[in-house]
Amino acid sequence: MTEIELTDADRRVVVVAVGKGEDAVTAINEAAARHRIHGARVTAVGGFASAELGYFDRAKRDYLPIPVREQVEVLSLLGDIADDHGRPALHLHAVLGHRDGSTVGGHLLRGEVWPTLEVIITEVGASLTKRIDHETGLALLTGTTGP
Amino acid sequence: MTEIELTDADRRVVVVAVGKGEDAVTAINEAAARHRIHGARVTAVGGFASAELGYFDRAKRDYLPIPVREQVEVLSLLGDIADDHGRPALHLHAVLGHRDGSTVGGHLLRGEVWPTLEVIITEVGASLTKRIDHETGLALLTGTTGP
Amino acid sequence: MTEIELTDADRRVVVVAVGKGEDAVTAINEAAARHRIHGARVTAVGGFASAELGYFDRAKRDYLPIPVREQVEVLSLLGDIADDHGRPALHLHAVLGHRDGSTVGGHLLRGEVWPTLEVIITEVGASLTKRIDHETGLALLTGTTGP
Repeated sequence: MTEIELTDADRRVVVVAVGKGEDAVTAINEAAARHRIHGARVTAVGGFASAELGYFDRAKRDYLPIPVREQVEVLSLLGDIADDHGRPALHLHAVLGHRDGSTVGGHLLRGEVWPTLEVIITEVGASLTKRIDHETGLALLTGTTGP
Repeated sequence: MTEIELTDADRRVVVVAVGKGEDAVTAINEAAARHRIHGARVTAVGGFASAELGYFDRAKRDYLPIPVREQVEVLSLLGDIADDHGRPALHLHAVLGHRDGSTVGGHLLRGEVWPTLEVIITEVGASLTKRIDHETGLALLTGTTGP
Repeated sequence: MTEIELTDADRRVVVVAVGKGEDAVTAINEAAARHRIHGARVTAVGGFASAELGYFDRAKRDYLPIPVREQVEVLSLLGDIADDHGRPALHLHAVLGHRDGSTVGGHLLRGEVWPTLEVIITEVGASLTKRIDHETGLALLTGTTGP
Protein backbone atom coordinates (compact mmCIF):
# COMPACT_ATOMS: atom_id res chain seq x y z
CA MET A 1 0.00 0.00 0.00
CA THR A 2 1.31 3.41 -0.99
CA GLU A 3 -0.34 6.53 0.31
CA ILE A 4 -0.05 10.29 0.31
CA GLU A 5 -1.80 12.98 2.35
CA LEU A 6 -2.45 16.40 0.84
CA THR A 7 -3.51 19.39 2.88
CA ASP A 8 -5.51 22.25 1.40
CA ALA A 9 -7.08 24.60 3.90
CA ASP A 10 -8.94 22.32 6.31
CA ARG A 11 -9.92 19.55 3.92
CA ARG A 12 -7.28 16.91 3.36
CA VAL A 13 -7.12 14.41 0.52
CA VAL A 14 -5.55 10.97 1.02
CA VAL A 15 -4.70 8.87 -2.03
CA VAL A 16 -4.10 5.18 -1.36
CA ALA A 17 -2.76 2.69 -3.92
CA VAL A 18 -3.68 -0.69 -2.42
CA GLY A 19 -1.39 -3.45 -3.69
CA LYS A 20 -1.77 -7.07 -4.77
CA GLY A 21 -3.15 -9.43 -2.14
CA GLU A 22 -4.13 -6.73 0.34
CA ASP A 23 -7.70 -6.51 1.68
CA ALA A 24 -9.38 -3.30 0.51
CA VAL A 25 -11.45 -2.76 3.66
CA THR A 26 -8.46 -3.25 5.98
CA ALA A 27 -6.26 -0.99 3.85
CA ILE A 28 -8.80 1.86 3.71
CA ASN A 29 -9.53 1.47 7.41
CA GLU A 30 -5.83 1.60 8.32
CA ALA A 31 -5.17 4.61 6.08
CA ALA A 32 -8.14 6.46 7.60
CA ALA A 33 -6.97 5.65 11.14
CA ARG A 34 -3.38 6.67 10.39
CA HIS A 35 -4.50 10.04 8.98
CA ARG A 36 -7.23 10.47 11.64
CA ILE A 37 -9.99 10.81 9.03
CA HIS A 38 -13.38 11.21 10.74
CA GLY A 39 -15.54 12.61 7.92
CA ALA A 40 -14.87 11.91 4.24
CA ARG A 41 -16.06 10.74 0.83
CA VAL A 42 -14.35 7.63 -0.57
CA THR A 43 -14.15 6.57 -4.23
CA ALA A 44 -12.01 3.88 -5.87
CA VAL A 45 -11.52 1.84 -9.04
CA GLY A 46 -9.29 -1.19 -9.67
CA GLY A 47 -9.63 -4.96 -9.49
CA PHE A 48 -10.31 -7.76 -7.00
CA ALA A 49 -9.14 -11.40 -7.20
CA SER A 50 -12.09 -12.27 -4.94
CA ALA A 51 -14.51 -10.45 -2.65
CA GLU A 52 -17.32 -10.79 -0.16
CA LEU A 53 -20.26 -8.44 -0.51
CA GLY A 54 -23.32 -8.13 1.73
CA TYR A 55 -27.05 -7.45 1.39
CA PHE A 56 -28.78 -6.15 4.52
CA ASP A 57 -31.69 -8.44 5.34
CA ARG A 58 -34.45 -6.50 7.09
CA ALA A 59 -35.88 -9.54 8.90
CA LYS A 60 -32.53 -10.94 10.08
CA ARG A 61 -31.11 -7.48 10.85
CA ASP A 62 -27.80 -8.66 9.41
CA TYR A 63 -25.85 -8.84 6.14
CA LEU A 64 -26.40 -11.89 3.92
CA PRO A 65 -23.05 -12.79 2.33
CA ILE A 66 -22.63 -12.57 -1.46
CA PRO A 67 -19.34 -14.34 -2.29
CA VAL A 68 -17.42 -13.38 -5.45
CA ARG A 69 -14.90 -16.09 -6.34
CA GLU A 70 -13.21 -14.82 -9.51
CA GLN A 71 -11.20 -11.88 -10.81
CA VAL A 72 -13.51 -8.86 -11.20
CA GLU A 73 -13.14 -5.23 -12.17
CA VAL A 74 -13.96 -2.83 -9.32
CA LEU A 75 -16.30 -0.68 -11.42
CA SER A 76 -17.33 1.54 -8.53
CA LEU A 77 -16.34 1.64 -4.88
CA LEU A 78 -18.21 4.48 -3.23
CA GLY A 79 -18.96 5.49 0.32
CA ASP A 80 -18.08 7.54 3.34
CA ILE A 81 -16.03 7.56 6.51
CA ALA A 82 -17.54 8.74 9.80
CA ASP A 83 -16.26 8.80 13.38
CA ASP A 84 -16.82 5.97 15.84
CA HIS A 85 -15.41 7.19 19.17
CA GLY A 86 -12.14 8.29 17.58
CA ARG A 87 -11.87 5.37 15.13
CA PRO A 88 -12.92 5.59 11.47
CA ALA A 89 -16.30 4.00 10.63
CA LEU A 90 -16.40 2.94 6.96
CA HIS A 91 -19.55 2.61 4.87
CA LEU A 92 -18.50 1.29 1.47
CA HIS A 93 -20.59 -0.11 -1.39
CA ALA A 94 -19.15 -1.76 -4.49
CA VAL A 95 -20.23 -2.66 -8.02
CA LEU A 96 -17.99 -5.37 -9.53
CA GLY A 97 -17.71 -6.45 -13.18
CA HIS A 98 -17.33 -9.99 -14.50
CA ARG A 99 -15.56 -11.14 -17.68
CA ASP A 100 -18.73 -10.77 -19.78
CA GLY A 101 -19.53 -7.32 -18.38
CA SER A 102 -22.28 -8.56 -16.06
CA THR A 103 -22.20 -6.96 -12.62
CA VAL A 104 -22.62 -7.88 -8.97
CA GLY A 105 -22.82 -5.45 -6.08
CA GLY A 106 -23.34 -4.97 -2.37
CA HIS A 107 -21.98 -3.63 0.88
CA LEU A 108 -18.21 -4.26 0.76
CA LEU A 109 -17.18 -6.71 3.49
CA ARG A 110 -13.86 -7.91 2.00
CA GLY A 111 -12.00 -7.44 -1.29
CA GLU A 112 -8.69 -9.08 -2.18
CA VAL A 113 -6.99 -6.52 -4.39
CA TRP A 114 -5.41 -7.54 -7.70
CA PRO A 115 -3.61 -5.86 -9.39
CA THR A 116 -4.42 -2.49 -7.79
CA LEU A 117 -7.11 -0.43 -6.10
CA GLU A 118 -6.75 3.32 -6.52
CA VAL A 119 -8.56 4.99 -3.61
CA ILE A 120 -9.23 8.71 -3.16
CA ILE A 121 -10.41 9.89 0.28
CA THR A 122 -11.56 13.55 0.51
CA GLU A 123 -12.44 15.07 3.85
CA VAL A 124 -15.77 16.88 4.15
CA GLY A 125 -14.35 19.26 6.77
CA ALA A 126 -15.95 17.90 9.94
CA SER A 127 -16.37 14.70 11.92
CA LEU A 128 -19.46 12.77 10.83
CA THR A 129 -21.18 11.14 13.78
CA LYS A 130 -23.31 7.99 13.90
CA ARG A 131 -25.82 6.57 16.36
CA ILE A 132 -27.14 3.04 16.77
CA ASP A 133 -30.58 2.66 15.19
CA HIS A 134 -32.59 0.27 17.39
CA GLU A 135 -34.79 -1.07 14.60
CA THR A 136 -31.84 -2.30 12.51
CA GLY A 137 -28.94 -2.49 14.94
CA LEU A 138 -26.92 -0.43 12.42
CA ALA A 139 -24.92 2.71 13.18
CA LEU A 140 -26.54 5.42 11.05
CA LEU A 141 -25.26 8.90 10.26
CA THR A 142 -26.88 11.54 12.46
CA GLY A 143 -24.91 14.75 12.01
CA THR A 144 -21.51 16.21 12.73
CA THR A 145 -19.51 17.49 15.64
CA GLY A 146 -18.97 20.76 13.79
CA PRO A 147 -16.18 21.98 11.49
CA MET B 1 -33.35 14.27 7.38
CA THR B 2 -30.27 15.62 9.13
CA GLU B 3 -27.94 17.97 7.33
CA ILE B 4 -24.84 20.08 7.82
CA GLU B 5 -23.20 22.75 5.66
CA LEU B 6 -19.43 23.20 5.74
CA THR B 7 -17.68 26.20 4.24
CA ASP B 8 -14.09 26.07 3.01
CA ALA B 9 -13.02 28.98 0.87
CA ASP B 10 -15.73 29.23 -1.79
CA ARG B 11 -16.69 25.59 -2.12
CA ARG B 12 -19.20 24.34 0.39
CA VAL B 13 -19.92 20.74 1.31
CA VAL B 14 -23.39 19.67 2.42
CA VAL B 15 -23.83 16.27 4.08
CA VAL B 16 -27.40 14.96 4.22
CA ALA B 17 -28.53 11.88 6.15
CA VAL B 18 -31.90 11.05 4.59
CA GLY B 19 -34.09 9.09 7.01
CA LYS B 20 -36.53 6.17 6.79
CA GLY B 21 -39.50 6.70 4.52
CA GLU B 22 -38.25 9.93 2.93
CA ASP B 23 -37.94 10.27 -0.86
CA ALA B 24 -34.30 10.63 -1.89
CA VAL B 25 -34.96 12.99 -4.82
CA THR B 26 -37.17 15.31 -2.77
CA ALA B 27 -34.70 15.33 0.14
CA ILE B 28 -31.68 16.15 -2.05
CA ASN B 29 -33.68 18.77 -3.93
CA GLU B 30 -34.83 20.45 -0.72
CA ALA B 31 -31.33 20.42 0.80
CA ALA B 32 -29.88 21.93 -2.40
CA ALA B 33 -32.57 24.64 -2.46
CA ARG B 34 -32.14 25.45 1.23
CA HIS B 35 -28.36 25.85 0.82
CA ARG B 36 -28.72 27.58 -2.58
CA ILE B 37 -26.53 24.99 -4.34
CA HIS B 38 -26.29 25.75 -8.07
CA GLY B 39 -23.25 23.74 -9.12
CA ALA B 40 -22.16 20.54 -7.36
CA ARG B 41 -21.19 16.87 -7.47
CA VAL B 42 -23.49 14.48 -5.60
CA THR B 43 -22.60 11.00 -4.28
CA ALA B 44 -24.53 8.74 -1.90
CA VAL B 45 -24.78 5.19 -0.55
CA GLY B 46 -27.49 3.58 1.58
CA GLY B 47 -30.68 1.62 1.00
CA PHE B 48 -34.13 1.97 -0.62
CA ALA B 49 -37.33 0.13 0.34
CA SER B 50 -38.54 0.77 -3.23
CA ALA B 51 -37.61 3.02 -6.13
CA GLU B 52 -38.52 4.19 -9.60
CA LEU B 53 -35.72 4.46 -12.13
CA GLY B 54 -35.91 5.70 -15.72
CA TYR B 55 -34.36 4.90 -19.11
CA PHE B 56 -34.43 7.70 -21.67
CA ASP B 57 -36.14 6.44 -24.80
CA ARG B 58 -34.77 8.24 -27.86
CA ALA B 59 -37.91 7.72 -29.98
CA LYS B 60 -40.39 8.73 -27.26
CA ARG B 61 -38.16 11.52 -25.96
CA ASP B 62 -39.17 10.54 -22.43
CA TYR B 63 -38.12 8.26 -19.56
CA LEU B 64 -39.48 4.71 -19.56
CA PRO B 65 -40.18 3.73 -15.94
CA ILE B 66 -38.21 0.89 -14.31
CA PRO B 67 -40.01 0.06 -11.04
CA VAL B 68 -38.04 -1.52 -8.17
CA ARG B 69 -40.44 -3.09 -5.64
CA GLU B 70 -38.18 -4.56 -2.95
CA GLN B 71 -35.51 -3.55 -0.46
CA VAL B 72 -32.27 -2.79 -2.36
CA GLU B 73 -28.81 -1.53 -1.49
CA VAL B 74 -28.02 1.87 -3.05
CA LEU B 75 -24.66 0.77 -4.46
CA SER B 76 -24.00 4.05 -6.22
CA LEU B 77 -25.96 7.28 -6.45
CA LEU B 78 -23.96 9.70 -8.58
CA GLY B 79 -24.72 12.95 -10.36
CA ASP B 80 -24.68 16.69 -10.37
CA ILE B 81 -26.69 19.76 -9.44
CA ALA B 82 -26.99 22.69 -11.85
CA ASP B 83 -29.00 25.91 -11.78
CA ASP B 84 -32.48 26.25 -13.26
CA HIS B 85 -33.41 29.93 -12.92
CA GLY B 86 -32.40 30.03 -9.25
CA ARG B 87 -33.71 26.55 -8.40
CA PRO B 88 -31.49 23.44 -8.20
CA ALA B 89 -31.67 21.10 -11.23
CA LEU B 90 -30.72 17.55 -10.21
CA HIS B 91 -29.26 14.93 -12.55
CA LEU B 92 -28.93 11.72 -10.53
CA HIS B 93 -28.22 8.16 -11.69
CA ALA B 94 -28.39 5.10 -9.43
CA VAL B 95 -27.16 1.51 -9.37
CA LEU B 96 -29.17 -0.62 -6.93
CA GLY B 97 -28.33 -4.10 -5.56
CA HIS B 98 -30.75 -6.98 -4.99
CA ARG B 99 -30.53 -9.73 -2.35
CA ASP B 100 -28.47 -12.00 -4.65
CA GLY B 101 -26.09 -9.19 -5.66
CA SER B 102 -27.68 -8.65 -9.08
CA THR B 103 -28.05 -5.01 -10.01
CA VAL B 104 -30.55 -2.65 -11.64
CA GLY B 105 -29.89 0.95 -12.61
CA GLY B 106 -31.22 4.08 -14.25
CA HIS B 107 -31.99 7.75 -13.93
CA LEU B 108 -33.29 8.22 -10.36
CA LEU B 109 -36.94 9.36 -10.41
CA ARG B 110 -37.93 8.31 -6.87
CA GLY B 111 -36.30 6.34 -4.03
CA GLU B 112 -37.99 5.55 -0.71
CA VAL B 113 -35.09 5.54 1.76
CA TRP B 114 -34.66 2.68 4.26
CA PRO B 115 -32.81 2.65 6.59
CA THR B 116 -30.59 5.56 5.51
CA LEU B 117 -29.12 7.41 2.56
CA GLU B 118 -25.82 9.16 3.25
CA VAL B 119 -25.46 11.99 0.70
CA ILE B 120 -22.41 14.19 0.14
CA ILE B 121 -22.87 17.31 -2.00
CA THR B 122 -19.67 19.19 -2.94
CA GLU B 123 -19.84 22.50 -4.75
CA VAL B 124 -17.74 22.93 -7.90
CA GLY B 125 -17.35 26.66 -7.25
CA ALA B 126 -19.71 28.11 -9.85
CA SER B 127 -23.29 27.88 -11.08
CA LEU B 128 -23.69 25.22 -13.75
CA THR B 129 -26.14 26.31 -16.41
CA LYS B 130 -28.40 24.21 -18.64
CA ARG B 131 -30.26 24.82 -21.88
CA ILE B 132 -33.16 22.93 -23.47
CA ASP B 133 -31.93 20.63 -26.25
CA HIS B 134 -34.58 20.64 -28.98
CA GLU B 135 -33.83 17.13 -30.26
CA THR B 136 -34.49 15.48 -26.87
CA GLY B 137 -36.48 18.05 -24.91
CA LEU B 138 -33.95 17.61 -22.09
CA ALA B 139 -32.11 20.39 -20.26
CA LEU B 140 -28.43 19.75 -20.94
CA LEU B 141 -25.39 21.29 -19.28
CA THR B 142 -23.91 24.10 -21.35
CA GLY B 143 -21.42 25.94 -19.15
CA THR B 144 -21.30 28.13 -16.07
CA THR B 145 -22.07 31.66 -15.05
CA GLY B 146 -18.51 32.02 -13.73
CA PRO B 147 -17.03 31.56 -10.25
CA MET C 1 -17.68 19.92 -25.67
CA THR C 2 -18.09 22.79 -23.25
CA GLU C 3 -15.75 23.16 -20.32
CA ILE C 4 -14.90 25.42 -17.44
CA GLU C 5 -11.94 25.52 -15.04
CA LEU C 6 -12.40 26.72 -11.47
CA THR C 7 -9.51 27.55 -9.16
CA ASP C 8 -9.81 27.32 -5.37
CA ALA C 9 -6.54 27.45 -3.51
CA ASP C 10 -4.42 24.77 -5.20
CA ARG C 11 -7.11 22.33 -6.22
CA ARG C 12 -8.85 23.08 -9.48
CA VAL C 13 -12.17 21.72 -10.67
CA VAL C 14 -12.87 21.21 -14.38
CA VAL C 15 -16.45 20.61 -15.53
CA VAL C 16 -16.84 19.17 -19.02
CA ALA C 17 -20.14 18.80 -20.89
CA VAL C 18 -19.32 16.30 -23.64
CA GLY C 19 -21.70 16.66 -26.57
CA LYS C 20 -23.50 14.35 -28.98
CA GLY C 21 -21.28 12.07 -31.04
CA GLU C 22 -18.07 12.83 -29.17
CA ASP C 23 -15.98 10.02 -27.66
CA ALA C 24 -15.95 10.26 -23.86
CA VAL C 25 -12.38 9.00 -23.40
CA THR C 26 -10.96 11.38 -26.03
CA ALA C 27 -12.91 14.33 -24.61
CA ILE C 28 -11.80 13.72 -21.00
CA ASN C 29 -8.24 13.12 -22.13
CA GLU C 30 -8.16 16.36 -24.16
CA ALA C 31 -9.70 18.40 -21.33
CA ALA C 32 -7.17 16.98 -18.85
CA ALA C 33 -4.27 17.74 -21.21
CA ARG C 34 -5.50 21.27 -21.92
CA HIS C 35 -5.79 22.05 -18.21
CA ARG C 36 -2.58 20.14 -17.36
CA ILE C 37 -4.37 17.85 -14.88
CA HIS C 38 -1.92 15.32 -13.42
CA GLY C 39 -3.77 14.09 -10.32
CA ALA C 40 -7.57 14.06 -10.03
CA ARG C 41 -10.81 12.22 -9.31
CA VAL C 42 -13.24 11.90 -12.22
CA THR C 43 -17.01 11.30 -12.00
CA ALA C 44 -19.67 11.55 -14.71
CA VAL C 45 -23.27 10.68 -15.60
CA GLY C 46 -25.07 10.88 -18.95
CA GLY C 47 -25.73 8.59 -21.89
CA PHE C 48 -23.90 6.65 -24.61
CA ALA C 49 -25.22 5.66 -28.06
CA SER C 50 -22.65 2.83 -28.02
CA ALA C 51 -19.53 1.92 -26.09
CA GLU C 52 -16.63 -0.47 -25.76
CA LEU C 53 -15.75 -1.71 -22.30
CA GLY C 54 -12.88 -3.98 -21.25
CA TYR C 55 -12.22 -6.78 -18.75
CA PHE C 56 -8.58 -7.34 -17.85
CA ASP C 57 -7.71 -10.97 -18.51
CA ARG C 58 -4.98 -12.14 -16.13
CA ALA C 59 -3.67 -14.86 -18.45
CA LYS C 60 -3.64 -12.73 -21.62
CA ARG C 61 -2.43 -9.64 -19.76
CA ASP C 62 -4.77 -7.58 -21.90
CA TYR C 63 -8.32 -6.23 -21.99
CA LEU C 64 -11.03 -8.46 -23.46
CA PRO C 65 -13.50 -6.24 -25.34
CA ILE C 66 -17.13 -5.98 -24.16
CA PRO C 67 -19.04 -4.21 -26.96
CA VAL C 68 -22.24 -2.27 -26.12
CA ARG C 69 -24.28 -1.65 -29.27
CA GLU C 70 -27.34 0.27 -28.09
CA GLN C 71 -28.31 3.47 -26.28
CA VAL C 72 -27.44 3.12 -22.57
CA GLU C 73 -27.57 5.33 -19.50
CA VAL C 74 -24.11 6.10 -18.07
CA LEU C 75 -25.07 5.17 -14.49
CA SER C 76 -21.58 5.68 -13.13
CA LEU C 77 -18.33 6.76 -14.71
CA LEU C 78 -15.67 6.82 -12.00
CA GLY C 79 -11.89 6.93 -11.95
CA ASP C 80 -8.75 8.96 -11.69
CA ILE C 81 -6.19 10.89 -13.71
CA ALA C 82 -2.47 10.43 -13.06
CA ASP C 83 0.64 11.76 -14.79
CA ASP C 84 2.40 9.90 -17.58
CA HIS C 85 5.54 11.94 -18.36
CA GLY C 86 3.59 15.19 -18.57
CA ARG C 87 0.52 13.71 -20.28
CA PRO C 88 -2.67 12.72 -18.42
CA ALA C 89 -3.09 8.98 -17.77
CA LEU C 90 -6.79 8.11 -17.41
CA HIS C 91 -8.16 5.16 -15.44
CA LEU C 92 -11.92 5.14 -15.95
CA HIS C 93 -14.50 2.46 -15.13
CA ALA C 94 -18.16 2.60 -16.19
CA VAL C 95 -21.47 1.00 -15.25
CA LEU C 96 -24.04 1.34 -18.06
CA GLY C 97 -27.81 0.77 -17.92
CA HIS C 98 -30.01 -0.89 -20.54
CA ARG C 99 -33.68 -0.19 -21.33
CA ASP C 100 -34.88 -2.78 -18.78
CA GLY C 101 -32.53 -1.51 -16.05
CA SER C 102 -30.05 -4.36 -16.43
CA THR C 103 -26.43 -3.24 -16.27
CA VAL C 104 -23.10 -3.88 -17.97
CA GLY C 105 -19.74 -2.57 -16.83
CA GLY C 106 -16.00 -2.54 -17.38
CA HIS C 107 -12.91 -0.48 -18.02
CA LEU C 108 -14.00 2.35 -20.35
CA LEU C 109 -12.22 2.05 -23.72
CA ARG C 110 -14.65 4.10 -25.85
CA GLY C 111 -18.06 5.73 -25.34
CA GLU C 112 -20.01 7.58 -28.03
CA VAL C 113 -21.87 10.26 -26.08
CA TRP C 114 -25.60 10.84 -26.62
CA PRO C 115 -27.18 13.16 -25.62
CA THR C 116 -24.68 14.38 -23.01
CA LEU C 117 -21.98 13.34 -20.56
CA GLU C 118 -21.56 15.65 -17.56
CA VAL C 119 -18.02 15.20 -16.24
CA ILE C 120 -16.56 16.65 -13.05
CA ILE C 121 -12.77 16.50 -12.61
CA THR C 122 -11.43 17.51 -9.16
CA GLU C 123 -7.71 17.79 -8.56
CA VAL C 124 -6.26 15.98 -5.54
CA GLY C 125 -3.51 18.60 -5.16
CA ALA C 126 -0.50 16.72 -6.49
CA SER C 127 0.70 14.75 -9.50
CA LEU C 128 -0.13 11.05 -9.18
CA THR C 129 2.66 8.91 -10.59
CA LYS C 130 2.50 5.43 -12.15
CA ARG C 131 5.02 2.70 -12.81
CA ILE C 132 4.85 -0.30 -15.14
CA ASP C 133 4.02 -3.50 -13.24
CA HIS C 134 5.97 -6.32 -14.89
CA GLU C 135 3.48 -9.07 -13.98
CA THR C 136 0.57 -7.39 -15.78
CA GLY C 137 2.18 -4.89 -18.15
CA LEU C 138 -0.13 -2.24 -16.67
CA ALA C 139 0.91 1.19 -15.36
CA LEU C 140 -0.12 1.16 -11.69
CA LEU C 141 -0.31 4.07 -9.26
CA THR C 142 2.75 4.27 -7.02
CA GLY C 143 2.64 7.63 -5.27
CA THR C 144 2.95 11.30 -6.01
CA THR C 145 5.59 13.84 -6.85
CA GLY C 146 4.43 15.96 -3.91
CA PRO C 147 2.01 18.90 -3.66
